[in-house]
Amino acid sequence: MKLFIGNQNYSSWSLRAWLIFSQHNLSVEVCKLKLFTDEFYQQLESITPTAKVPTLVDGNTPIWDSLAILEYVSEQHLQGKGWPEDPSQRAKARSLASEMHSGFFALRDELPMNCRAKRVVSLSANAEKEIARIDAIWSEQMAENGAGWLFGDWSIADAMYAPVALRFQTYDIPLSSLAKQYQQKVLSSPAIQTWLEQASLETDIVEEDEAGIERA
Amino acid sequence: MKLFIGNQNYSSWSLRAWLIFSQHNLSVEVCKLKLFTDEFYQQLESITPTAKVPTLVDGNTPIWDSLAILEYVSEQHLQGKGWPEDPSQRAKARSLASEMHSGFFALRDELPMNCRAKRVVSLSANAEKEIARIDAIWSEQMAENGAGWLFGDWSIADAMYAPVALRFQTYDIPLSSLAKQYQQKVLSSPAIQTWLEQASLETDIVEEDEAGIERA
Ligand SMILES: N[C@@H](CCC(=O)N[C@@H](CS)C(=O)NCC(=O)O)C(=O)O
Ligand SMILES: N[C@@H](CCC(=O)N[C@@H](CS)C(=O)NCC(=O)O)C(=O)O
Repeated sequence: MKLFIGNQNYSSWSLRAWLIFSQHNLSVEVCKLKLFTDEFYQQLESITPTAKVPTLVDGNTPIWDSLAILEYVSEQHLQGKGWPEDPSQRAKARSLASEMHSGFFALRDELPMNCRAKRVVSLSANAEKEIARIDAIWSEQMAENGAGWLFGDWSIADAMYAPVALRFQTYDIPLSSLAKQYQQKVLSSPAIQTWLEQASLETDIVEEDEAGIERA
Repeated sequence: MKLFIGNQNYSSWSLRAWLIFSQHNLSVEVCKLKLFTDEFYQQLESITPTAKVPTLVDGNTPIWDSLAILEYVSEQHLQGKGWPEDPSQRAKARSLASEMHSGFFALRDELPMNCRAKRVVSLSANAEKEIARIDAIWSEQMAENGAGWLFGDWSIADAMYAPVALRFQTYDIPLSSLAKQYQQKVLSSPAIQTWLEQASLETDIVEEDEAGIERA
């Protein structure tokens, strides 16, 4: 399998897909392409109809969306273990993952993923509401499942919310204590530490993802 | 199982979830709530954290997002038959479904689902691009699989694109011939005919979904 990703500093969707390989020690060749460059489009155009990252290529099959990649890898390579086993927990994890995939637009727009930066931004009312919703999700899951991942063991739901933990760190978003605990769990995990190290070696700047002003 | 949906004239996300029950003759109690009314929020607030439709309740488990409902029903009630069986086709169907779930914002914004209306709108460049992408998807699948559903047999990918077929009818969007053929397949299907009949009995108006001007 070959996984195409973008700049690790910026590409939140790439991170989601990359995480399932890292968390499950699944071997994959990672091919990093610089976002918005000619090479990016040249490489992807022959492989996927949308020319976006992440794209996974398994044999001759391209899969070109982060959630589709996560479902695919879980089903075809992990015997469905990407999701919690209990049907009700599994349903909840899928609801949370799809809620993320189809929403949270203010948050994505106003708090672009930018791993190396420390910034302050002013937030719209919609962004505040979305942050409150994420705080509620994380707190509820921590209260239910203890200090582990959202559903105890790591699942695709954690992949979908990992970029948010990084965004909240960059912009220093205050969280309630259980939600903060989950954020710390994500940030201190070996997979995210590896991602951050690799991101820190990058020097390219994507202007449109540089939001806010420096904070101390 | 109990499925909460919104006004059938307007609620595109509800249609997606409703279709899998209809196409597979799965029994479900449908509970229709009028969008944006007090009753809507009162009924949903105790059931789901987001108070949105569609929401499926199976036993004590709420599932509150259209794609999550489709995956859940396929896995728990249809032995995975919501998707094509061949792993490569299955991966492509998932890519297309997730591409829809996480994108096409201009189209959703400028061409709100409004089953009973016949309108003309002027389109942004982004909307034009998204329409071209949908035309390409439908044409490619028709060329590959003949005049049936996107992957031959009906799949969740068809559920995800069905509201688009209705939007294109309302706003009379021109399509290439293979894409048009798929649109006709969707519009003439018994499930969509039933949905349209039920929608036609509704009289409520949701102002924000009334776009464009009447056409002949
Ligand atoms: N729905 C897709 C979205 C992917 C996406 O938008 N990727 C961005 C980078 S994070 C991209 O490739 N942008 C390049 C472009 O739009 O030209 C997913 O979840 O994978
Ligand atoms: N991601 C959700 C979105 C659902 C959604 O936005 N539903 C709309 C109606 S089509 C709704 O319930 N709106 C009520 C509200 O926002 O208050 C899904 O796919 O099910």
